[in-house]
Amino acid sequence: MTRILVLNGNTTQAVTDRIAEAARAAAPAGATTEAVTAPFGLPLIVTRADWLLSGPPILEALAARRGSYDAAVIAVFGDPALDAAKLLLDVPVIGISEAAFHAAAMLGRRFGIVSFTAALRPMFEDCLDHHGLRARCAGFRMGPTDATYPAQLGAAETAQLLALIDQSIAEDGAEAVILAGGPLAGLAAMLQPSVGVPLVDGTVAAVRMAAALAGMPRPQRPRPARPLSGYGAEVTSLYGA
Amino acid sequence: MTRILVLNGNTTQAVTDRIAEAARAAAPAGATTEAVTAPFGLPLIVTRADWLLSGPPILEALAARRGSYDAAVIAVFGDPALDAAKLLLDVPVIGISEAAFHAAAMLGRRFGIVSFTAALRPMFEDCLDHHGLRARCAGFRMGPTDATYPAQLGAAETAQLLALIDQSIAEDGAEAVILAGGPLAGLAAMLQPSVGVPLVDGTVAAVRMAAALAGMPRPQRPRPARPLSGYGAEVTSLYGA
Amino acid sequence: MTRILVLNGNTTQAVTDRIAEAARAAAPAGATTEAVTAPFGLPLIVTRADWLLSGPPILEALAARRGSYDAAVIAVFGDPALDAAKLLLDVPVIGISEAAFHAAAMLGRRFGIVSFTAALRPMFEDCLDHHGLRARCAGFRMGPTDATYPAQLGAAETAQLLALIDQSIAEDGAEAVILAGGPLAGLAAMLQPSVGVPLVDGTVAAVRMAAALAGMPRPQRPRPARPLSGYGAEVTSLYGA
Amino acid sequence: MTRILVLNGNTTQAVTDRIAEAARAAAPAGATTEAVTAPFGLPLIVTRADWLLSGPPILEALAARRGSYDAAVIAVFGDPALDAAKLLLDVPVIGISEAAFHAAAMLGRRFGIVSFTAALRPMFEDCLDHHGLRARCAGFRMGPTDATYPAQLGAAETAQLLALIDQSIAEDGAEAVILAGGPLAGLAAMLQPSVGVPLVDGTVAAVRMAAALAGMPRPQRPRPARPLSGYGAEVTSLYGA
Amino acid sequence: MTRILVLNGNTTQAVTDRIAEAARAAAPAGATTEAVTAPFGLPLIVTRADWLLSGPPILEALAARRGSYDAAVIAVFGDPALDAAKLLLDVPVIGISEAAFHAAAMLGRRFGIVSFTAALRPMFEDCLDHHGLRARCAGFRMGPTDATYPAQLGAAETAQLLALIDQSIAEDGAEAVILAGGPLAGLAAMLQPSVGVPLVDGTVAAVRMAAALAGMPRPQRPRPARPLSGYGAEVTSLYGA
Amino acid sequence: MTRILVLNGNTTQAVTDRIAEAARAAAPAGATTEAVTAPFGLPLIVTRADWLLSGPPILEALAARRGSYDAAVIAVFGDPALDAAKLLLDVPVIGISEAAFHAAAMLGRRFGIVSFTAALRPMFEDCLDHHGLRARCAGFRMGPTDATYPAQLGAAETAQLLALIDQSIAEDGAEAVILAGGPLAGLAAMLQPSVGVPLVDGTVAAVRMAAALAGMPRPQRPRPARPLSGYGAEVTSLYGA
Repeated sequence: MTRILVLNGNTTQAVTDRIAEAARAAAPAGATTEAVTAPFGLPLIVTRADWLLSGPPILEALAARRGSYDAAVIAVFGDPALDAAKLLLDVPVIGISEAAFHAAAMLGRRFGIVSFTAALRPMFEDCLDHHGLRARCAGFRMGPTDATYPAQLGAAETAQLLALIDQSIAEDGAEAVILAGGPLAGLAAMLQPSVGVPLVDGTVAAVRMAAALAGMPRPQRPRPARPLSGYGAEVTSLYGA
Repeated sequence: MTRILVLNGNTTQAVTDRIAEAARAAAPAGATTEAVTAPFGLPLIVTRADWLLSGPPILEALAARRGSYDAAVIAVFGDPALDAAKLLLDVPVIGISEAAFHAAAMLGRRFGIVSFTAALRPMFEDCLDHHGLRARCAGFRMGPTDATYPAQLGAAETAQLLALIDQSIAEDGAEAVILAGGPLAGLAAMLQPSVGVPLVDGTVAAVRMAAALAGMPRPQRPRPARPLSGYGAEVTSLYGA
Repeated sequence: MTRILVLNGNTTQAVTDRIAEAARAAAPAGATTEAVTAPFGLPLIVTRADWLLSGPPILEALAARRGSYDAAVIAVFGDPALDAAKLLLDVPVIGISEAAFHAAAMLGRRFGIVSFTAALRPMFEDCLDHHGLRARCAGFRMGPTDATYPAQLGAAETAQLLALIDQSIAEDGAEAVILAGGPLAGLAAMLQPSVGVPLVDGTVAAVRMAAALAGMPRPQRPRPARPLSGYGAEVTSLYGA
Repeated sequence: MTRILVLNGNTTQAVTDRIAEAARAAAPAGATTEAVTAPFGLPLIVTRADWLLSGPPILEALAARRGSYDAAVIAVFGDPALDAAKLLLDVPVIGISEAAFHAAAMLGRRFGIVSFTAALRPMFEDCLDHHGLRARCAGFRMGPTDATYPAQLGAAETAQLLALIDQSIAEDGAEAVILAGGPLAGLAAMLQPSVGVPLVDGTVAAVRMAAALAGMPRPQRPRPARPLSGYGAEVTSLYGA
Repeated sequence: MTRILVLNGNTTQAVTDRIAEAARAAAPAGATTEAVTAPFGLPLIVTRADWLLSGPPILEALAARRGSYDAAVIAVFGDPALDAAKLLLDVPVIGISEAAFHAAAMLGRRFGIVSFTAALRPMFEDCLDHHGLRARCAGFRMGPTDATYPAQLGAAETAQLLALIDQSIAEDGAEAVILAGGPLAGLAAMLQPSVGVPLVDGTVAAVRMAAALAGMPRPQRPRPARPLSGYGAEVTSLYGA
Repeated sequence: MTRILVLNGNTTQAVTDRIAEAARAAAPAGATTEAVTAPFGLPLIVTRADWLLSGPPILEALAARRGSYDAAVIAVFGDPALDAAKLLLDVPVIGISEAAFHAAAMLGRRFGIVSFTAALRPMFEDCLDHHGLRARCAGFRMGPTDATYPAQLGAAETAQLLALIDQSIAEDGAEAVILAGGPLAGLAAMLQPSVGVPLVDGTVAAVRMAAALAGMPRPQRPRPARPLSGYGAEVTSLYGA
């Protein structure tokens, strides 16, 4: 059994619940998922400063549960703490932006990125550059910067989202479309019947990539203990002290 | 049960056998693999011309078995017929170069590519450009262009391979290493205990990526029939005629 | 006398006729052109799958006429079979996309691409990446994806095309403009008097580049015979068997 | 008077002392420098995990001294916390990698990067990508990965460094050379008389860039308070709470 | 005292006056600025041909004043003569495009470029490529190609400029904005209070970067005299003859 | 008859003679070549400063002969004055670096660059970036920076050159090789029988590309006269005054 820990770096439990449901539905045969919320930090991670400050609580949560999972997903668009977690843990750690990009790249030559709000765009630009996949991105189709996610996704919101997806396909040439933003978790499967190209959900992609990588060879790398000061026992334990 | 078809585009049955074994070992829970050999073409695909001419037999084999698999792997370095197969089939099709690149990119910031022979290098250069992941590649460490794969991997050959891997890590800064070349299928697991970074085998990566993508939403896209002449019934059927 | 074979990979004779005329008009002093139609395949090559399947008939036609030409042009946007033909033949082989890009790059710092239909755009995106000239492209100005080429180019269609060209120059900063799509063959010369930057026709560019390269040194490279199965005598002969 | 805070993210006071001296020597007319040590974290920041975990103490130190400086320098190769600090503070914040890259790019077409140890190379590769200046980098010339910085820089060490610099110029075509690694702070001025291209010291470059930017217009941007939990008063104050 | 020579490559004295004022206001403590006009050439440098032909008079002016300045600024968008001047002079020479790009890159992740007229865009495209900073540019927001600079900047022109700046921030995600075009020199400080991201003026940035670099180590490189014919005494003296 | 002017920007007549011979041998049917020497400037153009200062004499020579040629070649590696000449003249103007890159790119996927001396490398790096073809370059194989071209090419020099070519093919994967440096003009044809990939000579490539482009449509663009001061009658005439 492959145990996948899905870590919501936002401190909002309602988002964790939604992510948990999407993760559970996406888990392949032989895999279980558990979703947890970061112990502290920000209710909604939006800026580059948020990414840095959500890092230590994410590492703390990952450290606290070591041994109870075979792969981990960091369920925050922007992939905070991802590079550090990959180095410090002995199991695969996957970010939902990273997973969405790689999965979409295997499902279409160029992928579009669609969201209710353009507030996420700087983060996605940074992520595309960081993961080196900008050339595979056909462009962004997003609502206004100051838009917020609707609490309920009614017919109007669905229609708005489908219109953005259509623009991404027709205007930008997208052959796969990533639905971006935590509150959209789980929507891809629902909208897929209305769309002619694959819709990619970050949480779904990450859970499946995590399961895929968990079964591949990995090195045993004993790390020398290094002195880290000022952090709690969990984070410090990652440095072997 | 997810049924994964693994297609050896080379017409050499011995290579198919080796690939079949690696695929079987890599299959996740709930997945089965079947390896088949291309019906015609080349015993060993090496050049860009080979890639083109191995395309129709690969499509023929994929067409002939439609309905019997939920995802397909094209097990030829260089990913011949990959773009066409992705368009023409209703299930995910993954190439082993593509899978190796994406998996390696999720396992380390920069991946090296190691092989017994530099003859494969132009193909990998083309593939890196095609998949847009060149910036994630730390470089190549390969034996001479005219080297052939050893029939048996004895202590000397293993030592040579480990030396190339070490160079990739120490000189090029590789944080994951792809073992390239069909005859190396299955080696990654064997050599992993001696190596401090993840070793990536294309067949293994592709089987696991195929299983991962098979469980994600996909569009139903009825395609209008189009007139294709000069091909056999199987390939022609892919055009809906 | 430099003999240039111009190969229409589409099986539509009317398109070959149009291409033949454009090629004849473009032939430099001391060069003759002959246009032939692919023996089988697709009436209109549009998708990546079409490119693969139009490859073997293109190679067959090239092989069948070996010795009767000093350079060849593959007259299909997207350059199917181009890399294979360059490897297998002892004379220069040029694609019309390739030739248009290189010629346009020598005629202006950034070139625009204009067409009646955006259906060709994915092909051009792939081609720009493949030939490594994306940074020289100022952008696309194309009609709707579902537009078809007009049978006759009347005043309305000419006006539409000139409007797209103007946008490419004024909005995108194009300093040369490529007219894309087989049915536009020959139009560049006609529209040039109305346009302030060079207009580039793929067939014209390819015929002239082919003549240019035919007179440059080329290696004699005896190739070892290699076993290719499942193809007709012509294609097989390219493998020296 | 422009007050520049130079923040050593490593917790090693001896390194701070060396940086303090280099910073003082580099301060332009009308500027003062003050060097401080991060309140907690790691004695020597080397890995990507270190960068993340050195971020909060860097922000804490910056927050604690707000109002006492007009520009800040983060004196750690790799520029940890840099993006967050730029967002959260109302004065310019410059990283020493960032400053070294931009200054070197203005002093020569391509810059080389030289260091006693290749252990820093992954960090520099990441930094070059992050700042978008990879194309300006001529390459790396570094000692072995497991080398440590000499406690004293004797004749042998100086000769070794000059040899690496010479290779960077002669083999890689570097027209400016960055000396990388905290313990090299201050060396550039000493070695410059022996070298024919500009030598760039990160601390020196950052102090001068910080002074340069401090005098340029900057927006007043009142930020809405946002809820951040789990951090001390200083870091939390950056979120306006 | 750091003496900065600011060279207007355009032969229009009124522009020099405006630049002189902006330079003086931007000079840091301990620095003086002197603005001079190119002795011949073009009243307004706009095209690539202009850049070449404005080069020799710029070099002549720089040569004529050697010894009287510690750093020089070439105050023409497009940075004519910059590479040559960097090679031939023993003090730092900075272009205003170069300085604007580097400063903006340190002030925001992606910078926008705003101007009254799109006529400057090709020059900026070339400059971004030349300096290797295209990936940091969020895009252009410019008036029509045939627009001219208003003689006086009234309320209407200010409003137009602010609207372009707003588009750059809201639509393109710019985190810093460069105001491009000589007649805009000095405007950044005036408009900054109305704008939420840093506004960058090329002259200001270049004066401050020049002062920054003037204080860093530089090599003494005796250059062998080389025979240059056909130029006046000043330019020829740069070749040591 | 297509008349091609070949302009040696170096003031050394012996180099012009060699170029003249290579150009004549390369001229296609229906074309004549005339080689001229720049009226002033530098005996040997090597540095970026040389490129700038060789520009005006190149433009003067081009202007002086207007009407007597249908296309022009600037026969200096580094392509000085090329962008200006393309703008100011009504016939195609081609640089030998530009032509070599484009021709080599059509003859092989990746091209190597070989020369007796690495002194030319910075120029080629700049040129590759400027023409946007760096991704097609497999790398450089050059003699030492301080090497000079041999007066006579004896057996030893030929062997040295062939060794560099072999390295470019075997180590770097070059599928075409550019021989760089004026004194190598004409060598490609001589060495081609010993080499398995196409050898590209810049002068030959440029003459053939110039002939190719001369026969393609070009706009008539009346240019408004613009005031240029300080130059002789010939250069000034290019500005329409």
